[in-house]
Amino acid sequence: MSLTDVIEGTRQAVKSDPHNAAVSFSVANALVPGTATVVDVRVRNHSLTVDEPPALGGTDTAANPVEYALAALGSCQVVTYQFWAARLGIPLTAVRVTVDGDLDLHGFFGFSHATRPGFGDVRVSVALEGPAAADRYEELRRAVDEHCPVLDLFRNETPVSTKLA
Amino acid sequence: MSLTDVIEGTRQAVKSDPHNAAVSFSVANALVPGTATVVDVRVRNHSLTVDEPPALGGTDTAANPVEYALAALGSCQVVTYQFWAARLGIPLTAVRVTVDGDLDLHGFFGFSHATRPGFGDVRVSVALEGPAAADRYEELRRAVDEHCPVLDLFRNETPVSTKLA
Repeated sequence: MSLTDVIEGTRQAVKSDPHNAAVSFSVANALVPGTATVVDVRVRNHSLTVDEPPALGGTDTAANPVEYALAALGSCQVVTYQFWAARLGIPLTAVRVTVDGDLDLHGFFGFSHATRPGFGDVRVSVALEGPAAADRYEELRRAVDEHCPVLDLFRNETPVSTKLA
Repeated sequence: MSLTDVIEGTRQAVKSDPHNAAVSFSVANALVPGTATVVDVRVRNHSLTVDEPPALGGTDTAANPVEYALAALGSCQVVTYQFWAARLGIPLTAVRVTVDGDLDLHGFFGFSHATRPGFGDVRVSVALEGPAAADRYEELRRAVDEHCPVLDLFRNETPVSTKLA
């Protein structure tokens, strides 16, 4: 099914019942016993591994959590470019997205209360290929940045509750 | 090297020069040619795959970007529990974290301007095991939630710039 078909099918499903647009996602994360920082993650029928590099106490068997967050943003940008190019009828033959993020470890380690633990700055650089005029790709970038779920998560506050089970 | 050693080593390194706490992370994301939604992600020496389920136009070869974002949060919680348990001297023998997120697709598809594209609500449930008293684990939860980098990313605004290369 093409992305245009997915967009139109979703439009009809949501028009017939707006509740069809409500989706939920769930992931289960567990420390691998006997390790300091290796995390086994289960998402539906998929599994992922997360670790830390040696400088952060791990064995570098996989990317670390903040790198996963940047990968979520970069891949969400790629997929949103694909959907909105289809939606706007802009031809796109290649999409590459580099994401860089800066973080000050004073925050995570609690060495300074004035420093936030998360990223202080994130930069997204997008390389697109296709035969349309440059201004159409700029139009596409604006549409993508308004509708990209993980960009919204980064740029804005999201309510998160935490509890001990 | 134990996490306590990592904490003390980092404390000394940062005391001798605060710039040692400044770290940067970078990820490269590219659409796999010939696919609608498969993204190849490179992070240092690691590679990841991201895809969408069929309902969102993909082939479900891997978790999707918003699931990666929840995995980043859940795994960051696990690692931050490990570090802050070491820091506070609270024994911890198992850590499991479930993350659930709700999203309204009206936002991503642009069917409603009133709906944000990202998560409207996220819930984190943490199961800890260890021999300490219950109030020490509640103290640990508060310390973790103050210092978890990806929880900070979710709960607060992060500056993100985007540009076409």
